Amino acid sequence: MNTFGTAFRVSIFGESHGPSVGVVIDGCPAGLSFWREELMADLSRRKGLSPGTTKRKESDEPEIFSGIHKGYTTGFPIVLLTRNKDVRSGDYEMFSSVPRPGHADFTSGFKYKGYADMRGGGHFSGRLTWGMVTAGYFAKKILSPAIITARLVEAGGETDIDAAIKKATQTNDTIGGVVECIVRNAPKGIGEPIFGSVESAIGQIAFGIPAVNGVEFGAGFASSRSYGSLNNDPFVDARGKTSTNNAGGINGGITNGNDMIIRVSVKPAASTGVTQTTFDKEKGEMTELQITGRHDACIAKRIPVILESAVAIALADLLMLDRGINGPRDQR
Amino acid sequence: MNTFGTAFRVSIFGESHGPSVGVVIDGCPAGLSFWREELMADLSRRKGLSPGTTKRKESDEPEIFSGIHKGYTTGFPIVLLTRNKDVRSGDYEMFSSVPRPGHADFTSGFKYKGYADMRGGGHFSGRLTWGMVTAGYFAKKILSPAIITARLVEAGGETDIDAAIKKATQTNDTIGGVVECIVRNAPKGIGEPIFGSVESAIGQIAFGIPAVNGVEFGAGFASSRSYGSLNNDPFVDARGKTSTNNAGGINGGITNGNDMIIRVSVKPAASTGVTQTTFDKEKGEMTELQITGRHDACIAKRIPVILESAVAIALADLLMLDRGINGPRDQR
Amino acid sequence: MNTFGTAFRVSIFGESHGPSVGVVIDGCPAGLSFWREELMADLSRRKGLSPGTTKRKESDEPEIFSGIHKGYTTGFPIVLLTRNKDVRSGDYEMFSSVPRPGHADFTSGFKYKGYADMRGGGHFSGRLTWGMVTAGYFAKKILSPAIITARLVEAGGETDIDAAIKKATQTNDTIGGVVECIVRNAPKGIGEPIFGSVESAIGQIAFGIPAVNGVEFGAGFASSRSYGSLNNDPFVDARGKTSTNNAGGINGGITNGNDMIIRVSVKPAASTGVTQTTFDKEKGEMTELQITGRHDACIAKRIPVILESAVAIALADLLMLDRGINGPRDQR
Amino acid sequence: MNTFGTAFRVSIFGESHGPSVGVVIDGCPAGLSFWREELMADLSRRKGLSPGTTKRKESDEPEIFSGIHKGYTTGFPIVLLTRNKDVRSGDYEMFSSVPRPGHADFTSGFKYKGYADMRGGGHFSGRLTWGMVTAGYFAKKILSPAIITARLVEAGGETDIDAAIKKATQTNDTIGGVVECIVRNAPKGIGEPIFGSVESAIGQIAFGIPAVNGVEFGAGFASSRSYGSLNNDPFVDARGKTSTNNAGGINGGITNGNDMIIRVSVKPAASTGVTQTTFDKEKGEMTELQITGRHDACIAKRIPVILESAVAIALADLLMLDRGINGPRDQR
Repeated sequence: MNTFGTAFRVSIFGESHGPSVGVVIDGCPAGLSFWREELMADLSRRKGLSPGTTKRKESDEPEIFSGIHKGYTTGFPIVLLTRNKDVRSGDYEMFSSVPRPGHADFTSGFKYKGYADMRGGGHFSGRLTWGMVTAGYFAKKILSPAIITARLVEAGGETDIDAAIKKATQTNDTIGGVVECIVRNAPKGIGEPIFGSVESAIGQIAFGIPAVNGVEFGAGFASSRSYGSLNNDPFVDARGKTSTNNAGGINGGITNGNDMIIRVSVKPAASTGVTQTTFDKEKGEMTELQITGRHDACIAKRIPVILESAVAIALADLLMLDRGINGPRDQR
Repeated sequence: MNTFGTAFRVSIFGESHGPSVGVVIDGCPAGLSFWREELMADLSRRKGLSPGTTKRKESDEPEIFSGIHKGYTTGFPIVLLTRNKDVRSGDYEMFSSVPRPGHADFTSGFKYKGYADMRGGGHFSGRLTWGMVTAGYFAKKILSPAIITARLVEAGGETDIDAAIKKATQTNDTIGGVVECIVRNAPKGIGEPIFGSVESAIGQIAFGIPAVNGVEFGAGFASSRSYGSLNNDPFVDARGKTSTNNAGGINGGITNGNDMIIRVSVKPAASTGVTQTTFDKEKGEMTELQITGRHDACIAKRIPVILESAVAIALADLLMLDRGINGPRDQR
Repeated sequence: MNTFGTAFRVSIFGESHGPSVGVVIDGCPAGLSFWREELMADLSRRKGLSPGTTKRKESDEPEIFSGIHKGYTTGFPIVLLTRNKDVRSGDYEMFSSVPRPGHADFTSGFKYKGYADMRGGGHFSGRLTWGMVTAGYFAKKILSPAIITARLVEAGGETDIDAAIKKATQTNDTIGGVVECIVRNAPKGIGEPIFGSVESAIGQIAFGIPAVNGVEFGAGFASSRSYGSLNNDPFVDARGKTSTNNAGGINGGITNGNDMIIRVSVKPAASTGVTQTTFDKEKGEMTELQITGRHDACIAKRIPVILESAVAIALADLLMLDRGINGPRDQR
Repeated sequence: MNTFGTAFRVSIFGESHGPSVGVVIDGCPAGLSFWREELMADLSRRKGLSPGTTKRKESDEPEIFSGIHKGYTTGFPIVLLTRNKDVRSGDYEMFSSVPRPGHADFTSGFKYKGYADMRGGGHFSGRLTWGMVTAGYFAKKILSPAIITARLVEAGGETDIDAAIKKATQTNDTIGGVVECIVRNAPKGIGEPIFGSVESAIGQIAFGIPAVNGVEFGAGFASSRSYGSLNNDPFVDARGKTSTNNAGGINGGITNGNDMIIRVSVKPAASTGVTQTTFDKEKGEMTELQITGRHDACIAKRIPVILESAVAIALADLLMLDRGINGPRDQR
């Protein structure tokens, strides 16, 4: 199911080379200002036209179809989308019989019985994140004054990211990376028990970002190698401030008011330029495959603004649930 | 919200030192056999009375309150619970003013305004996983002939797990670990787009397990340091078999029929025996805190059967959604 | 799916002659007082031991299994149930081959393949409304100071209800009725667009009450025979008071602050004492059927407190959604 | 929340005089054919350009934005919308201070704090039903070979519907009506317990149709005046055929394979041409109000195809849930 959230609900639609990609936002309060320029600033970060990202040129310009009037949200469902224009579909049909390694060609073909429009990756394309970033734009306003920032902290296992990308580009290959997101001034006390925990909600949405295959909070996997006496964060004041932050701002699935820390693993883009082998279902034999076209050497470069948006969406939903159930209070 | 799933729905309830812990399962098909001994075998693995786990002695015996009749599921909602008997509550009230580091004392006190029954960890206790394991028992039957097995692959950063636990026990401290789950013969083609991906579903439920603070699929974080040409898994036959399995059996959020691989990070139990510092809200000053009572040196030891259950629940739900939407077909 | 609601979530479980009937309430705020006597007062109204209702004697006494501590809700999921004690199951098995007209014997047998425990009506029994009334008890507290009252306004087509029941009892037959519910001091501005309208929410839950086969708001079906100029309710002050109330306090699916008016049709209980005909699947021929045992001449007598509870649950959920999305404000 | 359904999920968006109205359909199987002419046939019935319906002229032509490729559904989310072109907004702003009786001006103004785009009725307009009919087009295909037909059986309390409309038109007034929907060859055994009953699902969606203020199944309110011995439907064969059909094809919330019968009450359109009184919030006094513009004398005339669609959506969702949970079987 293509929808995230309980009160603040986000649905993503579209295909990479179909008419459009877009987003429906249900449960967005009335009266939030919508500035095209503000949104475009976020969307530009997603496009990431710097070295390491694709050369596809889309304006990404949003068209309003519902829910915004005179520059403000109306309280009705919001629909925003952008057209796919710079589309060079080439021969995607062959991938139904010669599935590309690491892509959804095989699984999509099986599941949707050959009807899926898989040109450019179809509904599985990174282009779908346009809708996440757009929904995140509103979510951030709902969470204000919380400040959410993410950055690429590692690429191809190195912290000198430009060098790593350069190296990958030279071999026509692709690399992965690690993106870290920090939430400052997060609302305190949000998160519901067990399956509604902050980690569950962020986990669900972050794993919805194409290429993300790992998610951790605070010290995460490093804490699995640590001791309780080192990993626990001592409280140092009555408002819940802690002297360390291995918990990433979360205790028992509920925010404790300290900075939230989320890190995701981004796998290398499947569309490497290096020749690969795969099985040709029509011919019934192994074959070599050379992927051409425009692709990212390091898709992880695009992920920061997407992860910020995903985190914002999850937190906005949990904030609404909390104040819906428990009523208003000072959460800073 | 304390419920997981869309078609196969699981809700967990109870508190560590309250009357009971239990589970509601909605959307379970009629006609599944229920053998108390089979379930007790899973529940015993959860209790883990070997070195490194707590000495609390509960029978864990399930009581049937709904949905099972003459040894079979009836199609109606299932309610199973177990009583809390070996309860030594001691002075948990002090933790509302002297919150334990790493525990939910502070966040729960803030969120629930002091009304939560936090004895023994309350609703945040690992004891709540009784309900997950019980729901997983039915989920595994729905997924048959898939075989789901998990094991502790690392504790305190070491692969000699007994040695690591011994070391932690000697210093009265606690350690974390890494648990790996493999699903063999998984149904092919399950997982819905984007927020309904296999990773999103498993991510949501796995982060609902207390102490889990990281989740990764296939090569996971290691792939962030790899190359596309190495990380992609070449297909080697028409049924989707791959020669490597860095994707952990998932492409585009949909299972591809290869083994599924899920790994989680488990933080060290917060209840370390080592003296800690925290803030005393009543006195308005820092204080020392010594946690006594029965606690696990390595809670990660209990996680394998819980993770298996969580994965089974997520996959059963996705299987139902897939055959509900797309109709039946051969998924092996 | 056996769950109602988005923020305030209610799940009903149990069978008429199984171990228990009960309710899970998720999303209930902490700090609501729980008085056994208050709840028993509502539950007694449901039992309705006056002429026209069944002679089954159950204490209906609630057992707490989760979510209530020291007389207050804790914020954790609430589980309350009551045991089935006065059970005389007789020969219910025959109804799987000789389905009773108007009962769920046939459909349940088909759907659940013979595994359902249909003794006493199983999960379809009116006894399941114990859980609705219990959830309604908390919902009413959330909605305070709104006042919700329902009464039986018609039985067997007559307004002299006692006479109608007497007549039905004399012929060993059963009669239906109409129950009307009024909500005074309802919160203003609740209800979400289209499928989340107040009517949609109340419609969904009210049709979940066994034997309810019609629901209308305000003038309802009578308005279908009226004119716009007569049916519209003129506003008479700035706070939205209207001089008539054909809309039943709802405009555009959103409460307008006037009294809410809901009416439901209750069909005659299927368990009439009059001899009926039905098909014997085993013998392959029509047969006569005489239903014995304890049954209600007019089940509609029990419905008022159940309808109040259902309405309260729906409104509590919508109130939470509204204040979650739109924030707090004066809703009276 | 503006979404209906659990497996087959439908979200409606748009405003009467905004850029568009449309629909998102999630969980639609791949491979359903999409014929523009077929859909337009349903949409034309909705427009109802015969006497008694509005003169607004919209092409209603659908634009595909997602989920359809080469004339077939792809399995991805479907987005279809139609532009609003024949828009004459006039002075809708005055209705925020002079709310029209029977309209959502007052409630929407309160709830959305004046930000809602209420021109032409905004998101509350009957025009939004374009999306329901479009979703119903696919739902009917999923339900095939079930046949769903609805018709206006009564207008203004009369069965000579043309005469009733003529009379209302002459007085410049509006009338309501009753629409009846029959489902032949409905899948047997669908409907989930209690809140997931067939009546609950259809009730929820049918009350989402603007102007519907009553819903009943089978004999409905008439059964409240009947006897059990008359109202029960005797089974006459092993496949569940009944000799009467007061239950409207539903026992215990589950379809029994007989024709389903659903009737809804449609209130007279609030936009009557007769002069009305209301309160002027700005002037602080009562005022007279004359509504001009294009409006329907009998909106109930448009409802049949909308009700068919709503019923189809609800049944498609329940069918998916049933076969998801219980697996495939012969349901005819």
